[in-house]
Amino acid sequence: MILSDEEVTLVSSTLTFWNHLTSSELELLMNTIMPVSYEKGGRVHNGEHDCIGVMVIKSGSLRIYLLSEEGKEITLYRLDAGDVCMLSASCLMDNITFDVYIDAEESSEMLLIKSDVFAKLMKQNIYVENFTNKLAVDRFSDVMWAMEQILFMSFDQRMATFLIDESVKTKSDVIMLTHDHIAKYMGSAREVVSRMLKYFANEGVLEMFRGGVTIIDKTKLRSFL
Amino acid sequence: MILSDEEVTLVSSTLTFWNHLTSSELELLMNTIMPVSYEKGGRVHNGEHDCIGVMVIKSGSLRIYLLSEEGKEITLYRLDAGDVCMLSASCLMDNITFDVYIDAEESSEMLLIKSDVFAKLMKQNIYVENFTNKLAVDRFSDVMWAMEQILFMSFDQRMATFLIDESVKTKSDVIMLTHDHIAKYMGSAREVVSRMLKYFANEGVLEMFRGGVTIIDKTKLRSFL
Repeated sequence: MILSDEEVTLVSSTLTFWNHLTSSELELLMNTIMPVSYEKGGRVHNGEHDCIGVMVIKSGSLRIYLLSEEGKEITLYRLDAGDVCMLSASCLMDNITFDVYIDAEESSEMLLIKSDVFAKLMKQNIYVENFTNKLAVDRFSDVMWAMEQILFMSFDQRMATFLIDESVKTKSDVIMLTHDHIAKYMGSAREVVSRMLKYFANEGVLEMFRGGVTIIDKTKLRSFL
Repeated sequence: MILSDEEVTLVSSTLTFWNHLTSSELELLMNTIMPVSYEKGGRVHNGEHDCIGVMVIKSGSLRIYLLSEEGKEITLYRLDAGDVCMLSASCLMDNITFDVYIDAEESSEMLLIKSDVFAKLMKQNIYVENFTNKLAVDRFSDVMWAMEQILFMSFDQRMATFLIDESVKTKSDVIMLTHDHIAKYMGSAREVVSRMLKYFANEGVLEMFRGGVTIIDKTKLRSFL
């Protein structure tokens, strides 16, 4: 396909192996890279059943999570515009032995390098292989952060962290998420989330409304960190 | 230092970038690699305060774990003879933003490539950099396994898995670990471990004795998986 100037700038700056590609490797990549888009809530990657390839995110947001057999979810990290998603091609990496799920949190547009092409580039070019491993190590750090949150922090701390993060992310004190959604994102139960939000409301930290919460005392919220 | 033939075989087979080193890089490595040893229980790496370097394990066993401010431990993975430990040089990797603790579980002997030497090799040689990233991705998979265990498995399952793993590892049905040790390794509380072991004993799965347990019905133990 023919990429726009903007898209070329995006892929050449995010794929840091770009300047190490031979002209035939570059040609292969440019001839096969393709746009894909997902509606909000769409499933991008389905555990072990998918291996579509490496994606450069143009717009939107992806949530990468673990899903237990009982349906429990643990959010590992999120990716936004300008990020590169490689766990959607985890089958290409022998040393990745776990499976994740990936959903589009908003309607999202990506540029996809399909698995067979990426596999060829990785095999031929040590810089592509190293890029991929390095990207996985970035995500390793994200996952360790999530793990420490879940395992070591008490739930009021975790809830305060979550609300502050959401507020920073959306640049608003109004968080448009139901208790159900918050529970899902935090890998917790709705009842536990409702209890903690009610506690925060009683403490004058926030106000609840149908479909979300409004932070009214940030200083007090931060005191839980 | 002068390595023995056996040690040269060990490092050249575990450090898979070996054949990609220039003669001066190889010389630097061989001139500076040095033996280190730790007593059983010794602290090899102390969170953010250490960055000794990359270690090739000759004998013994290392346990890599997270430690919370409250003193709670979560075992991430173990390394044995023939493994390479890179989180003891995590300061060399910009994209590793978490800190772990490393203890010698048995008296252990390692060959150490000090941080300054390894940093130089990584900077000069893309194969060394890729080896390091790849090794980190191996450990990423280990950590994901531990995380799934902790977050998704019920405690009887986790306990059964732990006992079977220990039995396979030590090639014995007698597991010489106190309840305290088991709790530490599983990132759990001693009371919880004691309760579950008592339950397994009542079920005829194992017998408890001072300082350990003996598995007496493996089939039944496996039924908890």
